[in-house]
Amino acid sequence: MSERQGISRRGLLGAAGAAVATGVAGYAAHSALTTEESQAADNSGPVEFHGAHQAGIVTPAQDRLHFATFDVTATKRDAVVSLLKEWTAAAALMTAGRDIGQYGAVNGPGEAPPEDTGEAVGLPPARLTLTIGFGPSFFVDAKGNDRFGLKAKRPGALVDLPHFIGDNLDPNRSGGDIAVQACSDDPQVAVHAIRNLARIGFGTTVVRYSQLGFGRTSSTSRAQTTPRNLFGFKDGTNNLKLEDTTKLEEQLWVQPEDGPDWMVGGSYLVSRRIRMTIEIWDRTSLGEQEQIIGRGKGTGAPLGKADEFDPIDFNAKTSDGTPKLAADSHVRLAHPQFNKGAELLRRGYNFVDGSDGLGRLDAGLFFLAYQRDPRKQFVPIQQQLSRSDAMNEYIRHVGSGIFACPPGVAAGSFWGEKLFS
Amino acid sequence: MSERQGISRRGLLGAAGAAVATGVAGYAAHSALTTEESQAADNSGPVEFHGAHQAGIVTPAQDRLHFATFDVTATKRDAVVSLLKEWTAAAALMTAGRDIGQYGAVNGPGEAPPEDTGEAVGLPPARLTLTIGFGPSFFVDAKGNDRFGLKAKRPGALVDLPHFIGDNLDPNRSGGDIAVQACSDDPQVAVHAIRNLARIGFGTTVVRYSQLGFGRTSSTSRAQTTPRNLFGFKDGTNNLKLEDTTKLEEQLWVQPEDGPDWMVGGSYLVSRRIRMTIEIWDRTSLGEQEQIIGRGKGTGAPLGKADEFDPIDFNAKTSDGTPKLAADSHVRLAHPQFNKGAELLRRGYNFVDGSDGLGRLDAGLFFLAYQRDPRKQFVPIQQQLSRSDAMNEYIRHVGSGIFACPPGVAAGSFWGEKLFS
Repeated sequence: MSERQGISRRGLLGAAGAAVATGVAGYAAHSALTTEESQAADNSGPVEFHGAHQAGIVTPAQDRLHFATFDVTATKRDAVVSLLKEWTAAAALMTAGRDIGQYGAVNGPGEAPPEDTGEAVGLPPARLTLTIGFGPSFFVDAKGNDRFGLKAKRPGALVDLPHFIGDNLDPNRSGGDIAVQACSDDPQVAVHAIRNLARIGFGTTVVRYSQLGFGRTSSTSRAQTTPRNLFGFKDGTNNLKLEDTTKLEEQLWVQPEDGPDWMVGGSYLVSRRIRMTIEIWDRTSLGEQEQIIGRGKGTGAPLGKADEFDPIDFNAKTSDGTPKLAADSHVRLAHPQFNKGAELLRRGYNFVDGSDGLGRLDAGLFFLAYQRDPRKQFVPIQQQLSRSDAMNEYIRHVGSGIFACPPGVAAGSFWGEKLFS
Repeated sequence: MSERQGISRRGLLGAAGAAVATGVAGYAAHSALTTEESQAADNSGPVEFHGAHQAGIVTPAQDRLHFATFDVTATKRDAVVSLLKEWTAAAALMTAGRDIGQYGAVNGPGEAPPEDTGEAVGLPPARLTLTIGFGPSFFVDAKGNDRFGLKAKRPGALVDLPHFIGDNLDPNRSGGDIAVQACSDDPQVAVHAIRNLARIGFGTTVVRYSQLGFGRTSSTSRAQTTPRNLFGFKDGTNNLKLEDTTKLEEQLWVQPEDGPDWMVGGSYLVSRRIRMTIEIWDRTSLGEQEQIIGRGKGTGAPLGKADEFDPIDFNAKTSDGTPKLAADSHVRLAHPQFNKGAELLRRGYNFVDGSDGLGRLDAGLFFLAYQRDPRKQFVPIQQQLSRSDAMNEYIRHVGSGIFACPPGVAAGSFWGEKLFS
């Protein structure tokens, strides 16, 4: 385990003064001197890293995302274990709002590269969470080889996702041996976290792809208001929420009877980069938009209802007898009632990655959904949506990933320890 | 001028209730029903759109950026004037925190596309500013043709930027007939603004490129703390600030003696997409990093000084007689003392646009600098930096633009009206 203690990003002026007075140089003293700002407000505070489940799943969805997947270039199991230990120690520090090392001061002032890249100095913890998952390729390579002696531990639920109708996946935005989801209310804090994990991983892993998200598109707590996606609609009204404790056991967390042991208390993440053709959407009538979604654009209420959280009446008809909700509306096809009760905990983000060279914004939704078993949840839901969803005319799935996210980390343990024990 | 009145994004429940009670349908009523949140805090309030100068230049730098340039596809001068009028009206509404139209309700419920794309409904004004500029290609095309009868009005200061040593410019991330800089403390508000201008421009303009920035890298007011760039250093300590009123006349705003008339009170914007090779930087020693920048990483103080705002002593030497500040340090080469007094008002942003397919983050600084005359400011400063700056080993200029930003808009006028009169 790393011996790193970390440096408070906001430091203590007293300690800094002492360091300067005794002639201690190097970055730690510099860093501690930067603390002018007042204590962060409550909502910029830290989220506990350790616990039964990983943070960043039911944690009330933060505003910003930096998601990355990594490919492991090392071939030795020990190197992977060392990396996971280093990463865990760094994640515990960064989520607590601490930088990850002594900077140059370890080897005397200025002679070593700083251990921390520094761009988050002075920033609050900003509710940073870091959540890890292992992809199918972490267990077996493309030829079926057992890379790190983990092949037998691959969970049955960690399926290779099937091809869905309309999939137009870019391999450079899909897959990955390891995924790390960084969520924070401050994008610089989320960027800093992924960057420093990438830096620690140098020589062991390379970044396969990364994705920034600028606005959450789901709530994961009833204390949060429902945000809007780039179709301009409220998204995630009926999302699983942290208050739904019974449902979370049924739908989100891997149970002892599911196995394998190392995943109990964990969850499966499916990521999909969903490009929206927003320029075409924006020329669609309000009525058509609302029929496609199945909700009012302003209120977010199911069509025919007044309030966002009103229950959906799939049998409601207008005075001339036509259903208020089209059979191919998104809200209907995605509803548990038409999916054998299957639900997802979504915590996706809006993205705009510049424009695409054809005068269109490269914009959409980076979909992230956690679940107990993708074979019963994401896969059948997406099979139905990809066949019939009226929204398909305006979206294109261009990236994809599936990851087994182990349970939470106890103090002194590391990410995925049980997988390797 | 557009007749649009706009819709308060936060609406009034009373008015909405009335609309519902009288059976008025459509989006306006929906929209007004969404107002659950309390009034925005002061720092999320609106920035005045009208005034002697455009907002978004000395306005205290907001946290987030969405910058876009547009190419004009229309060939008629009248079409351009109409567009600028439409855009100005929309900009005035959006910066006030209002949506830009009646949605589908104008032509009856649901029959027309919504005039506003909707993803900012419920969000505060978030200090949105929209700032426009005209590029050289707006005045003459690549063959020197006078596109809109404006050739004679092209300012002398709106030069074609020369090639700088090390430039590696992507034409798809450079140039543009018109630039719009959207800054806001909420990225969704900035994205919404550019998207809606692009939508209004459909048939007249196309987006050439767009760029999101997630963290400001300069302060433009002494009331702001100095943020950090992705090198981990404080950036913009000696930036021109709105409180420097005398200097702003000397360095920022076009003066009557400069001409042309239509630019008096305006300013010239130079944009540069500066990719940072952060993975290499991160393996550089702290001492070298600090020598390159010329400042301490923690405090931001000039080397040899204790405080960020201490004056720089270019003659300071260590006990063995070597200069404390290297001759090729960035802070020295960029300093007015070595640039005939020339300064810039910078308001750049950090960006991470995923990764580059080679395992590296596509990250850096989207540099935006306003000035009175690029021939005396950006061009000679950048010529010196591109020749000698020690930082060049870690950066690459990959995009570029120059734009003449007209003075502010009076109520009833429109962006660039004097250019067309």
